Amino acid sequence: MDKQVPLCAVACMSCPLTPLFSVLLTLLAASYTDSSDDETSPRDKQQKNSKGNGDFCIKNIKQADFGRREIEIAEQEMPALMALRKRAQGEKPLAGAKVVGCTHITAQTAVLMETLSALGAQCRWAACNIYSTQNEVAAALAEGGFSVFAWKGESEDDFWWCIDRCVNLEGWQPNMILDDGGDLTHWIYKKYPNMFKKIKGIVEESVTGVHRLYQLSKAGKLCVPAMNVNDSVTKQKFDNLYCCRESILDGLKRTTDVMFGGKQVVVCGYGEVGKGCCAALKAMGSIVYVTEIDPICALQACMDGFRLVKLSEVIRQVDIVITCTGNKNVVVREYLDRMKNGCIVCNMGHSNTEIDVASLRTPELTWERVRSQVDHVIWPDGKRIVLLAEGRLLNLSCSTVPTFVLSITATTQALALIELYNAPEGRYKQDVYLLPKKMDEYVASLHLPTFDAHLTELSDEQAKYLGLNKNGPFKPNYYR
Amino acid sequence: MDKQVPLCAVACMSCPLTPLFSVLLTLLAASYTDSSDDETSPRDKQQKNSKGNGDFCIKNIKQADFGRREIEIAEQEMPALMALRKRAQGEKPLAGAKVVGCTHITAQTAVLMETLSALGAQCRWAACNIYSTQNEVAAALAEGGFSVFAWKGESEDDFWWCIDRCVNLEGWQPNMILDDGGDLTHWIYKKYPNMFKKIKGIVEESVTGVHRLYQLSKAGKLCVPAMNVNDSVTKQKFDNLYCCRESILDGLKRTTDVMFGGKQVVVCGYGEVGKGCCAALKAMGSIVYVTEIDPICALQACMDGFRLVKLSEVIRQVDIVITCTGNKNVVVREYLDRMKNGCIVCNMGHSNTEIDVASLRTPELTWERVRSQVDHVIWPDGKRIVLLAEGRLLNLSCSTVPTFVLSITATTQALALIELYNAPEGRYKQDVYLLPKKMDEYVASLHLPTFDAHLTELSDEQAKYLGLNKNGPFKPNYYR
Amino acid sequence: MDKQVPLCAVACMSCPLTPLFSVLLTLLAASYTDSSDDETSPRDKQQKNSKGNGDFCIKNIKQADFGRREIEIAEQEMPALMALRKRAQGEKPLAGAKVVGCTHITAQTAVLMETLSALGAQCRWAACNIYSTQNEVAAALAEGGFSVFAWKGESEDDFWWCIDRCVNLEGWQPNMILDDGGDLTHWIYKKYPNMFKKIKGIVEESVTGVHRLYQLSKAGKLCVPAMNVNDSVTKQKFDNLYCCRESILDGLKRTTDVMFGGKQVVVCGYGEVGKGCCAALKAMGSIVYVTEIDPICALQACMDGFRLVKLSEVIRQVDIVITCTGNKNVVVREYLDRMKNGCIVCNMGHSNTEIDVASLRTPELTWERVRSQVDHVIWPDGKRIVLLAEGRLLNLSCSTVPTFVLSITATTQALALIELYNAPEGRYKQDVYLLPKKMDEYVASLHLPTFDAHLTELSDEQAKYLGLNKNGPFKPNYYR
Amino acid sequence: MDKQVPLCAVACMSCPLTPLFSVLLTLLAASYTDSSDDETSPRDKQQKNSKGNGDFCIKNIKQADFGRREIEIAEQEMPALMALRKRAQGEKPLAGAKVVGCTHITAQTAVLMETLSALGAQCRWAACNIYSTQNEVAAALAEGGFSVFAWKGESEDDFWWCIDRCVNLEGWQPNMILDDGGDLTHWIYKKYPNMFKKIKGIVEESVTGVHRLYQLSKAGKLCVPAMNVNDSVTKQKFDNLYCCRESILDGLKRTTDVMFGGKQVVVCGYGEVGKGCCAALKAMGSIVYVTEIDPICALQACMDGFRLVKLSEVIRQVDIVITCTGNKNVVVREYLDRMKNGCIVCNMGHSNTEIDVASLRTPELTWERVRSQVDHVIWPDGKRIVLLAEGRLLNLSCSTVPTFVLSITATTQALALIELYNAPEGRYKQDVYLLPKKMDEYVASLHLPTFDAHLTELSDEQAKYLGLNKNGPFKPNYYR
Repeated sequence: MDKQVPLCAVACMSCPLTPLFSVLLTLLAASYTDSSDDETSPRDKQQKNSKGNGDFCIKNIKQADFGRREIEIAEQEMPALMALRKRAQGEKPLAGAKVVGCTHITAQTAVLMETLSALGAQCRWAACNIYSTQNEVAAALAEGGFSVFAWKGESEDDFWWCIDRCVNLEGWQPNMILDDGGDLTHWIYKKYPNMFKKIKGIVEESVTGVHRLYQLSKAGKLCVPAMNVNDSVTKQKFDNLYCCRESILDGLKRTTDVMFGGKQVVVCGYGEVGKGCCAALKAMGSIVYVTEIDPICALQACMDGFRLVKLSEVIRQVDIVITCTGNKNVVVREYLDRMKNGCIVCNMGHSNTEIDVASLRTPELTWERVRSQVDHVIWPDGKRIVLLAEGRLLNLSCSTVPTFVLSITATTQALALIELYNAPEGRYKQDVYLLPKKMDEYVASLHLPTFDAHLTELSDEQAKYLGLNKNGPFKPNYYR
Repeated sequence: MDKQVPLCAVACMSCPLTPLFSVLLTLLAASYTDSSDDETSPRDKQQKNSKGNGDFCIKNIKQADFGRREIEIAEQEMPALMALRKRAQGEKPLAGAKVVGCTHITAQTAVLMETLSALGAQCRWAACNIYSTQNEVAAALAEGGFSVFAWKGESEDDFWWCIDRCVNLEGWQPNMILDDGGDLTHWIYKKYPNMFKKIKGIVEESVTGVHRLYQLSKAGKLCVPAMNVNDSVTKQKFDNLYCCRESILDGLKRTTDVMFGGKQVVVCGYGEVGKGCCAALKAMGSIVYVTEIDPICALQACMDGFRLVKLSEVIRQVDIVITCTGNKNVVVREYLDRMKNGCIVCNMGHSNTEIDVASLRTPELTWERVRSQVDHVIWPDGKRIVLLAEGRLLNLSCSTVPTFVLSITATTQALALIELYNAPEGRYKQDVYLLPKKMDEYVASLHLPTFDAHLTELSDEQAKYLGLNKNGPFKPNYYR
Repeated sequence: MDKQVPLCAVACMSCPLTPLFSVLLTLLAASYTDSSDDETSPRDKQQKNSKGNGDFCIKNIKQADFGRREIEIAEQEMPALMALRKRAQGEKPLAGAKVVGCTHITAQTAVLMETLSALGAQCRWAACNIYSTQNEVAAALAEGGFSVFAWKGESEDDFWWCIDRCVNLEGWQPNMILDDGGDLTHWIYKKYPNMFKKIKGIVEESVTGVHRLYQLSKAGKLCVPAMNVNDSVTKQKFDNLYCCRESILDGLKRTTDVMFGGKQVVVCGYGEVGKGCCAALKAMGSIVYVTEIDPICALQACMDGFRLVKLSEVIRQVDIVITCTGNKNVVVREYLDRMKNGCIVCNMGHSNTEIDVASLRTPELTWERVRSQVDHVIWPDGKRIVLLAEGRLLNLSCSTVPTFVLSITATTQALALIELYNAPEGRYKQDVYLLPKKMDEYVASLHLPTFDAHLTELSDEQAKYLGLNKNGPFKPNYYR
Repeated sequence: MDKQVPLCAVACMSCPLTPLFSVLLTLLAASYTDSSDDETSPRDKQQKNSKGNGDFCIKNIKQADFGRREIEIAEQEMPALMALRKRAQGEKPLAGAKVVGCTHITAQTAVLMETLSALGAQCRWAACNIYSTQNEVAAALAEGGFSVFAWKGESEDDFWWCIDRCVNLEGWQPNMILDDGGDLTHWIYKKYPNMFKKIKGIVEESVTGVHRLYQLSKAGKLCVPAMNVNDSVTKQKFDNLYCCRESILDGLKRTTDVMFGGKQVVVCGYGEVGKGCCAALKAMGSIVYVTEIDPICALQACMDGFRLVKLSEVIRQVDIVITCTGNKNVVVREYLDRMKNGCIVCNMGHSNTEIDVASLRTPELTWERVRSQVDHVIWPDGKRIVLLAEGRLLNLSCSTVPTFVLSITATTQALALIELYNAPEGRYKQDVYLLPKKMDEYVASLHLPTFDAHLTELSDEQAKYLGLNKNGPFKPNYYR
C-alpha cells in the first residue's frame, strides 16, 4: 500500500452534519469505557459475541447492553427508518444486497444498519473517522451479529486495516457501497478494482466524497452509478438551515456560557448555515451583522434585517465572530489583532480553514486552555480572545446534532441504496446522480408523523389543473 | 381581426407582482381625473404635448405635471435604474434599439421607459391591462415625448387598437419586445409575422407570458430568442417572499382593520408566498396553521413552527383564511359553509381560482358590499363571512407593492433587453432563456446601496480556493 | 361664559388611544354625508326620529341605517360588552343611573352606550372632540332614542353648547359622569356645581382628564369619587404595547407605502409604545435603533436586541424616525437638517410636541402636501423629508385602532360606572381611584372567549398554598 | 442547639436565580478536586495560606490558583462591580464595615466580596447551600486573606458550624449582614441576639429570606432595617424574563439534545419566567401552548400568539411540558399518565413542588437514570417520560446562568450595603425596604457600557416639561 494519507480526519470536517455525538454522550460512554480500559489493541484481542460469532473487531463486547440502550433511544427519534422496517416486513427490497459501509459509527448509524438488515441486506462496516466511534454501540452491533470493525482512537494503520477487513473476505463480495468521505470507495479502487464488476452502486453523503466522485466521473473513471445524497433538498435545508439554527446556540452555551441578549455578533457568510445562525441569534436578542461576497445573499440579509458590512468595519466592536463561508482565511491575524478583549471566535462553516489559526501560533501570543475545546489566546497587552475548537467546526466539536436531523439523512441513504439496488438496468449509467425529487419528497413524508402533521391530498381535478401527478413530485428539481 | 379574447385581464391576475399601484394612488389619481372628466373617448380626441407632438393617445395631457411628480417620487426608490442611467451616459448600450412595450403603465414603468431612452432606445408603449393605467403618468410620458397609447378603462377593442398603434407605424419597425402577459407578442405573431425578421428578442416577465413562450418553443414556432424574467432568483425571492411578507399585513389592515394579535389564521400553501404570509402573521402575534400538499414544504412549515393541518381540521375555528397555492378550488363551498361568523377569506396566490367564489352566488346567500373590495356574504342564519377582493389577488387589489421591489424587476427587464440586444450572434438561439446568474447578481448589487450595504470582495487566493471568478457568478444556477 | 379654550382638541392628542376611527371609515362616512350635505347648522334644524322624539341634535337623522350597520359590525368585535348585556338581562345594575357622557362618538361608543342602556341607565351624550363624531352613528343613536348632541365639525361654541344641552335639562339631573378629557366635568364644576350633590362618581379615561382630577384632589376640591381608567393594567398593555405594535406598521404603510425590510429606523423612547413599535419593525426586517433616557428601559432595549444610541449618532443614516417619548422637542431642527433625503419622520407618542414642527415653518423650506397627512418638507438643496400628520399622533391620524382594543377600554368604563354606582357608602371617598385589580382581571376574562382561550382554575389546595382567593385577584397591584 | 432543619437546601430551590454554577464548571472543579481527594473533613485539617494566615476553613488551599483564574474570568463579565472598585479608589464608602455574609460561594460571589473589600469592608463568609461551593474559589479567597468557611458537600452540622465560625469571633463583631435564604440572620437571632445592637442593616436577596423578614416585621420582631433585593425591577426582569429566555434552551439541550423545531410544548404559567420560556421556544420554531389562571396574563399570552389551553386539552399531544407557575401540583400523576411516549417534563418555576414527582414513586413504574439529571420513568406498557432534575429547577440544575445577570444582582447587593451603611439615622426604620428606584436605575446604568450603549440626557427644558429630575428617577416605583 502506498503511503496514503487517510481522509478520515478531513472527511468529518468537511461534512459537518454527518452523524455526530454529543460531548455528554461521549463523557458517559467514556465512563463506561474506563471500567474496562485495558491498553490492549482490539486487533490483538480475540472476542466473541454471546452466540459465538467472532467476525468483528471492536473495543469491548461487554459494553453491548449499554450500547443497546443508546440505540433504543435513537430509534425513538428516527421514525422514518422504523416505518421503513414495518413496510418491508413482507417484501425485502434489499434481499441479496451485500452492503459494505464506512461511516461514523453511532447509535443513529446502528439504527440505519439494523434497518438495512431488516430490509434483507447483509452489512459489513468500518468507521470513517478514527475518533468518532461509540464503542458501546459497536459492541451492541457486534452482539447483534454485525461484522463491525471500528473503535474509538484507531491509528491510521488501524483505519485502513478495518476497511480492508470489511471488504476483503473469502467467499463474500459486496454489491453495494455506502460511503461517507470516499475512503472506502478509494480503497476498493486502489486494491480491489475488480470488485466493481459486481457492485451496483455507490451512495455517498459527504461534500468531500461527492467531490471525488464528480472528479472520477469527469475523468471517465467512475465505473458504477453513484448517488449524491449530500445535495438533496432535505439534507441542505435540514442539515444546514435548521440544524445550525439550533446548534449555534448550543455550541456557544456549552463552551462559553455566553449570554446572547444584547451581544454584537458578526456572521461571515449568509448561505444556509449563516441564515440559520443569524436567525437564532437575532431571535435571542443579539445584534447581528453579516458579511457576504454574493450580492443576492447580501440582499437577502438586508431584507431579513441584518446590516451588511465588511468585517473590518465591525471587528473592533463585536463580541462574537462566526464564520460560515466555506472559504479560507476569512478571519486573518489582522482581524484577530483588532478584536476587543473577550471576543469569541468560532467556525460553523467548512473544515478548519476559515479562521487562520496558524497565524496565532506565534511566540508573542500565549495560549491557555480554559476548558475542553476552549482556548484563551492572550496578547502581550493582556487582551484575550476566546477561540473555540481551535477553529474547527463548532457543532461537530461542541454541540450535538439532533437525532431527528440525522434521521433524514439516514433515510435518504437507505432509499438511495434501495433505488440503486432495484433500478432496472439502464436507468442509471456510470455517473453521479441526485436522488429523484420524488424520493426526496418521500423521505420528507416519512418524517411528518413526528410532528403529527397532516398532508393535504390533491383532488383529481386539482392535479389535472396543475399538471401534476397526485403522488408527486410536486416541484421542479431546482426548488429549494 | 378574429375575435380574440384579450388576455389582459388574466395576465394581471397571473402575475401578481408586476407593476401595481395602490388604492390610495388610484384614489388620488381619480380625484385629479375627475376634474377633467369628460366622457369623450381618448380615441376621439386630438391632443398635442407642449412641443406640438401628437403621436400618442391618452386620457388628458393636462395631467402631465401631476404625473411627473409621481414619477419623481418613484425615482427615489429605484436606485438601480438611476445608476444605470448614470453609467450609460457615455456609452449608449441601446443605441438603435426600437423597443415596443406592453406593460402596466405606472410611475415605476415610466422610470423604466425613461431609463431605456437614456440608454439610447426609442420606445412605443401600450398597456397590458385595461384598468391599470395611471392616466397622469401616461400624460407625463406623452409630454416627455413618448408614444404612449393607454388609458384607464379601455374597452377590449381599445386594448387591441392601442397595441396595434404601437406596432403598426409607417417607417418604424420594432427590433425588441418587452411584454407582460404575451398579448403584444401574440398580436405581432398574428398580424405582422414578418416583423420578427428584424426583432432581436423578447423579454417577458409574467407567468402566463412565459408559459406561452415555452409552448411556442416546444412547438418549434418561437422565431427569436426570449428571456424569461419571471424565474430569476431575485424576482422569486423578492416579489414573493419579501413582498408578500409586507403586503399581507397591509392588505388585511386596509380592508378590514383586523387586529392580528391572537388571531387564528390558516395559510393554504407554504411556497414562497405562503412563507412570507406566515412569517409576517406569526411575527404579529397570530397563531398560524398551514396546509400543504408537498411533503418537503410541509416539513419546512413544521420546522418553522407551524402546525400542519388539513383545512377541514381547523376551518371551524380560524378567524382568517389565506390561499397561496397556485391551485384551484382550495376553499370550496363546503368549507365556506363551516367557517365561523366573521371569518375573513382572501387570496394571495394565483388568479382568482383558489376560492370558489362562484359557489357563493346562490340565492340563499346575501352579498353586502361594506367597503371597496370588501363583501359580507351572509348565510340564512345570519352568519357572515368577509370576502376580500371577490377572491382576486389581495395585494393586487387592496395593498401597495413597494416601489423598491418593482425596481428589482424593472432593472432585470432593462438588463435583459441590453443583453439580448448586444449579444453576439449565436449566443442565443430561438429558445427561452433564464437571465444569466451573473446578471441576476448584478441586479442585486445595484440595489445594495439603498441599504448602505457593503459587499466583501474575494481575494485572489480565496477566489482560487473556491474555484470562482472574483466577479461572480458565486452560486450554481439552482441556488435559491 | 368666560372665554374658555376648549380642551377638546388637546384631549384627543393626549389620549392617543381613545376611540378613533379610520381614514377609510371617514371617507366612507364622508361619501354618505356628502349626499345630504347642506350647509345648515344642526342647531338650526328641527329633526325627529321615526318615533317622533326630537331630544337630540345631530347632522342628519336619515343616516341612521348606515350608522346602525357600523354599530352592528363593531358589536362583533366587542364581545365583553355583549356578554355584559346578556348577564344583566335579569338584574339591572344601572337601574336608576342617569349617565351624562362626553367622549368620541363612534360605533364603538355606541355599543358602550347601548350596553349602559341595557343595564338600566339613561344616557345623554356629547362629543369630546369637534372633529371625531361619526355623523351616521350619531344618527343611529338618535333614532334609537338616545339624546345625542354632536356632529363632525362643530365650532368651539357648538362644542360647549352641546355639552350644556346634555346637562342642563328641566326635570333631569345626572348622577354619573363618563368623561374623556375632562371638559364635561369642568363644565359642571363651572356652571352647575350644585349638581355634584347628586352625582355618585366620575369615570375618566384620558391622561389629561386624569391629571386634572388629581389636581382637583390635591387642591381638596374634588367633591365626588373618581375612577382613573387610564392607568389600568389592561389599558396600558393593550392600548400601548399591543396596539402600537399593529398601528405603527399600518400608519406607515397607509401614508407612505414604505417597504420595511432592511430599513434603518430609530425609535425614540422604549416605554410600552416604543416597545410595541420596535417589536413590529424588527419582526418585519427593519434594523432598529433606540434612544432612551432611563437606564432600566435602556437595558431592556439592549437585551431585546436593539442598539442603544444617541439620536445624533444615527440621524444621518436612518430612513425613518419615530418618537415615542412623551417628551417635547425630541426631534429638533438641528436633527431635521441632518437627516438624509427621503427620511420619514413621525410621532407615536404624546401630543404634537415631540417633533419641533414649528422650526420647519421657515422661509427657506418649502412644504409640499403630497397626500392627505403627508408633507414633503424641501430644503434649498433639494433634500426632502417626509413628515407625517404634521407631527401629531400617527395612529390617531393615519391608521385605525382595532375595535377589540377599544372594547377593553369601553368594558372598563362600564364596570367602573357599575362599581361607583353600586358601591356601598364609604367604600370610595372624594378621591381618585384605580379600578380594583379584580375588576381589571374581570375585564380581561371577558375578552378571552374571542380567542377561544381556556383559563385554568386553581384547586382549593393550590389556592391555599398560594394564599390566593380562587377567583382572584391573582397578582399584586403593581404587576404589569 | 435545638435541632433546626437547615433551610439551605430549600433556599436555593426557592430562589432560582441566585448565584448558580454550571454543570461544566462543576465537572471541571470536580476533576481538580479529585486529584486532592482525601477523605479528611476540612474541619479536621489545619491549613494556612502563603502568608501564614489560617483563619478560614475550606477544602484545599492548593486549589487557589485555579480558583483565581475562574475569578478573573468572572470579572470580565461583571463590569459594574469593577467600575464600583474604580470609583471607590479615593473614598471608601464601606470603611469600617464588618460584613458577615452567607451566599453561594462562586466566582461571581468572589468578585462581589473583593469589591466590598476594595470599598473598605472586612468580610467573613459562609455558604448558604451545602452543595454549591466552588472549592477552588473558596481557596482563592482564603489565599487572598478572606475568612471563608465553606466547602462542597458539607453536612448539616458543618453548615451551622461554618456560619457560627463567621459570626462568633473574639474581638470582631459584624455590623452588616448579607444573606441569601435567611439562615445566617436566623442564626444570629437565635444565638447572638445582642449583636443586632451594632448591626446597621440586613441585605437579603432570596424569596424565602425576604418572606421571613416580612414575617419578622409583621410580628414586630425585626430589629434593624432590611433591604429586599429580590423585588427590584432589574432583578425581576433580568433574572426572570431574560435569563429564562436563555436558560430554558440551554437546560433542555444539555440534558436531552432535543430538537426544538416543530416540537409541541406546553408552558404552564405566563409570568416573567413563562414569558421568557415561551419567547425562546417560539423563536426556535416550537409550537407553544400556555396555561394560566390569571386572565390578564392569559390575555397577554393570546396577544403574543400563544394558544391558551387547559393542560388536559393538550397533554396527550405535547412533546415537552414546562412548569413556571410558582404553584404546587400543577403536573399531577393523572397528566403524567396521559403524556405520550418520550414526553419531556421539567420545571422552571419554584422549588420542586410543581411536578408531583412523589406520585411517580410507585411500584408499577420503573425509574432509569439515563444521564446525570435525566430519568426515564417507564410505564408497564413501555411508555417512557423523560423527567429532568427530578422536578427541581432546570436552570439551577442543568444549565448555567450568565455571569452578566449575576452581576446585576451582585451590584444591587453592594449598593444596598452601601446605602444601609451610610444612610443618615432615621432614613430607614426597623422595616423591610425596596431599593430606591434611583439606585435601581444606577445599577442598570453601570451595565450599559457592556453593550456600548449610549444614554440620552434630558435637557433642562425637557426635564422641566416632564417634571423630572435630570438624574432620575425616571419612572414611578410600580413601573416594570
